Amino acid sequence: MTASIQFWFEFASTYSYLSAMRIEDAAARHGVAVDWQPFLLGPIFAAQGWDNSPFNIYPAKGRYMWRDMERLCDARDLPFLRPDPFPQNGLMAARLALVAKQQGRIAPFVRAVYAAQFGRGLAISDAGVLSKCWLEAGLDATLMQGASTPETKAALHGQSENAQKLDLFGAPSFIAGDELFWGDDRLEQAIMHAASI
Amino acid sequence: MTASIQFWFEFASTYSYLSAMRIEDAAARHGVAVDWQPFLLGPIFAAQGWDNSPFNIYPAKGRYMWRDMERLCDARDLPFLRPDPFPQNGLMAARLALVAKQQGRIAPFVRAVYAAQFGRGLAISDAGVLSKCWLEAGLDATLMQGASTPETKAALHGQSENAQKLDLFGAPSFIAGDELFWGDDRLEQAIMHAASI
Repeated sequence: MTASIQFWFEFASTYSYLSAMRIEDAAARHGVAVDWQPFLLGPIFAAQGWDNSPFNIYPAKGRYMWRDMERLCDARDLPFLRPDPFPQNGLMAARLALVAKQQGRIAPFVRAVYAAQFGRGLAISDAGVLSKCWLEAGLDATLMQGASTPETKAALHGQSENAQKLDLFGAPSFIAGDELFWGDDRLEQAIMHAASI
Repeated sequence: MTASIQFWFEFASTYSYLSAMRIEDAAARHGVAVDWQPFLLGPIFAAQGWDNSPFNIYPAKGRYMWRDMERLCDARDLPFLRPDPFPQNGLMAARLALVAKQQGRIAPFVRAVYAAQFGRGLAISDAGVLSKCWLEAGLDATLMQGASTPETKAALHGQSENAQKLDLFGAPSFIAGDELFWGDDRLEQAIMHAASI
């Protein structure tokens, strides 16, 4: 059995961008496969009384996050541009990610969406932006309508329910075996754990 | 001029324990001096509407933190025992730390307090526990009374005011030049930045 890791990401999450851009390479170096799991943090945040990103609710934490991201993106040669407004509405992107997953193209689609949002500051609720990302990922344009089916909507609800059952509270989160790891800073540790079991 | 880094720590902070136990060695390897800065997170948390540790207010985050600490302490060969109750009241310990700083003994005293609290699960509001830490750090017992003077109380208030001016929102925090770094995960980055300016 191939070792694998679940990568739970939310499109509005800045630190998920960092992980999305490197997880396939980092995992492959240790023979670990990546299972991409889109979900929405909104319901989890709402359950604990937040109606916005904690980076907006807690301004000092927000100011720090933007500077931290700038430094990390500089060090990794990743473009970084703050989208306005933040957080972006990632609902349609998350539904599309589930369709892309069925087509075996979730990784390139998700990377294209993050690059558009945090690399170029584009609005990922915009259908035109999402179309470009879709084509960039080598997907057939006609498949995009799959994002609006009742099945896809229900599947995304299921993702967010599973996230809550897994006790996730933020993104990115990684599951390796029975262990949960939170944050881009724990990616290596999560991969090493997946490789060891 | 020697490169230096400010290390802002709160005794009740689990991740500050991780940094306190390694910062002197890690900084010395890069010729960086450490300026130990005790402060209380209580006033900062209260200002954003929290009357308890975020790890108690947000249970999923709390469950994760305890497991993350276990794993990190295992990997670093650090003993780890959860104190009860959590968070501990670190007011007297923080005042004592300021007195120990005047005596040039803050680092060994702070390490002793963290080792008692998170290595052995002891109550750091207990005067007997603090006395043992004090002697362990090579300090004269008679100097302990310095923690209760109006000057020391005012100095600790000043620390927490300065922490707010520095836009700190959690612990451990590191200041190197004009840059703020938050969390034990950023210790190396903070030291490298201090060494580079």
